[in-house]
Amino acid sequence: MTKVLNAHDISRLIDMPAVIDVVQDAYKEKAMKTGEIWPMIYHAFSDMADMDIRSGALQPKHIFGNKLLTWFGNNAQQNMPELNGLVTLYSSETGEPTGIINAPALTGYRTGAAGAVASRVLANPHSNTLLMVGAGGQALYQIMAQLCVLPEISTVEVYDPMNHENAEKFVDTAKKRLVELFSHDIQAYEAVVAEKIEKRLSTVKFVAVNALDKAVAAAQVIVTATPSTKPLIKAEWVQAGTHINAIGADMEGKQELDTAIFAHANVYVDDLEQATTVGETQNPIKDGTLKKENIQEIGEVLAGQSVGRQDDQQITVFDSTGIALQDLEAANLALQRAVEHNVGTSVEL
Amino acid sequence: MTKVLNAHDISRLIDMPAVIDVVQDAYKEKAMKTGEIWPMIYHAFSDMADMDIRSGALQPKHIFGNKLLTWFGNNAQQNMPELNGLVTLYSSETGEPTGIINAPALTGYRTGAAGAVASRVLANPHSNTLLMVGAGGQALYQIMAQLCVLPEISTVEVYDPMNHENAEKFVDTAKKRLVELFSHDIQAYEAVVAEKIEKRLSTVKFVAVNALDKAVAAAQVIVTATPSTKPLIKAEWVQAGTHINAIGADMEGKQELDTAIFAHANVYVDDLEQATTVGETQNPIKDGTLKKENIQEIGEVLAGQSVGRQDDQQITVFDSTGIALQDLEAANLALQRAVEHNVGTSVEL
Repeated sequence: MTKVLNAHDISRLIDMPAVIDVVQDAYKEKAMKTGEIWPMIYHAFSDMADMDIRSGALQPKHIFGNKLLTWFGNNAQQNMPELNGLVTLYSSETGEPTGIINAPALTGYRTGAAGAVASRVLANPHSNTLLMVGAGGQALYQIMAQLCVLPEISTVEVYDPMNHENAEKFVDTAKKRLVELFSHDIQAYEAVVAEKIEKRLSTVKFVAVNALDKAVAAAQVIVTATPSTKPLIKAEWVQAGTHINAIGADMEGKQELDTAIFAHANVYVDDLEQATTVGETQNPIKDGTLKKENIQEIGEVLAGQSVGRQDDQQITVFDSTGIALQDLEAANLALQRAVEHNVGTSVEL
Repeated sequence: MTKVLNAHDISRLIDMPAVIDVVQDAYKEKAMKTGEIWPMIYHAFSDMADMDIRSGALQPKHIFGNKLLTWFGNNAQQNMPELNGLVTLYSSETGEPTGIINAPALTGYRTGAAGAVASRVLANPHSNTLLMVGAGGQALYQIMAQLCVLPEISTVEVYDPMNHENAEKFVDTAKKRLVELFSHDIQAYEAVVAEKIEKRLSTVKFVAVNALDKAVAAAQVIVTATPSTKPLIKAEWVQAGTHINAIGADMEGKQELDTAIFAHANVYVDDLEQATTVGETQNPIKDGTLKKENIQEIGEVLAGQSVGRQDDQQITVFDSTGIALQDLEAANLALQRAVEHNVGTSVEL
């Protein structure tokens, strides 16, 4: 029997702290070569529709599989979700399919977790102010994940490059939505975590900001998650000791950071080839500000093959583009818990 | 809602004549570029276990998707199927997943249909003797498909390169198994086709053969479907007018035909790059007997861009390696019928 898990199942089964831990495993397994990533397939149907297939194998978990994720930007006009897709998991002992899992639901969590894993080893652990650039669907996941790994953050500033009103609307309901998404939904199976998350959120204030220069200067941790194709954050605004998670760039032509930032930063990525092709680091590589040999994969830091932040003056940047192993780890977590709690639909295939 | 179809559903829903028609569409769409194939992902876990992911899009059917097929050769020892996997189909209008379908069940049909599509345009339509080389799991599908497109075949000779007893056992139960698999199973929804197939099978005799040289000389159509890595069929045995479907070779090092056969044959493949890399044509390409520019894709013939058999003296060879569009077409056929007859399990994803 194969388990089918939909978005509602996922939201009840997985909690952000656990996803952060398994995404950390994913990066480490890549560095230790016990996790394998196969070539990505990308296809654009039009300017407003594309899909990709990411696949790979995780030896220590005895699984392999793929994620097909689609984006159809015009779906919103019909009140349909823009993102669709499935993760399919298989046993690497027998080849049998073990799980079929809603991909957009997992993707939100694993992308949020990516930034948190980086902040754990790269951000100043005493950071008190987080700046979130972008107030779209990914912002809640990014904020929640950062709050999980940086216990002293008490202010979350939110900036929307398109429209300040968006940021204001976002902060008005942010705490309520975060509690619903990351605490209420997991009450049944992860009550202790749910309580911790609610407590954590009660200590944080959310502020919409309009002056990006001042907000950048005030924050010790910055997360960018926008569809921008032009630099939003200028190098001269970034203070010593700042850590930036650049999440938005995921194809050629995307850019959120001034390339001058990379001239004096310690730079980390999830996958060197992919990030320097479609991620934020494509830009400083293109204009020569950054050389590939000066970039480290975050998994190398986690596996002890390289080092993270060394002092409180360094500027660090993490460029996340998403690797299959994150999806497989998050899917595996959901599947294990679904079996344990008898959640989801079992089908005979 | 997304339909889930297991092997039992597939066997009730699709009939071989219909699969032949849609596989013909698949090849034609490739030639007309309304069907698109994305790069194949292949991974070997060991000598006894591998998997591949084939993906693509079919514009005229408004679908895209992928097939992940696994082969774990040691499963048989635990009485488990060696092949596992899923086809997932998506709407290219909205990106939504529409079907999740057992892959091994579809693969048998679409691989059998491949040979039949080729025989339709390449074999002598008055062929009366079919030689099946190989008596494994694929033989029933190949034989049934050939009988569907070559109405005058009255003798099916079966040769097993490993063990003559296998061939004898195979022919003893062949007719019964063919009737069960291709007629009984489709009684509920395709009664007319079922009756035709039973009638067709009643006119055929099955013979196990031990002398491959004589069997090759006696047959007008030959299908090879073995895991052989050495030539089984010698050039001097092959008579003028013979058509050969080379189905077995699907990775580097596989070979069923003497490369000298290609020196005087008209050669067709499903996908030029793939077939000349991992199919039967890899061998004559390697030793120089055949040049890529002398090979045609079968879809080009079907689309009227090239020609099939021109006279009754030509020797023709079709090298089939399997393309994603066959899987998508067969999956789409099953899914459409499943919706029509309300078969399968619907899940919310």
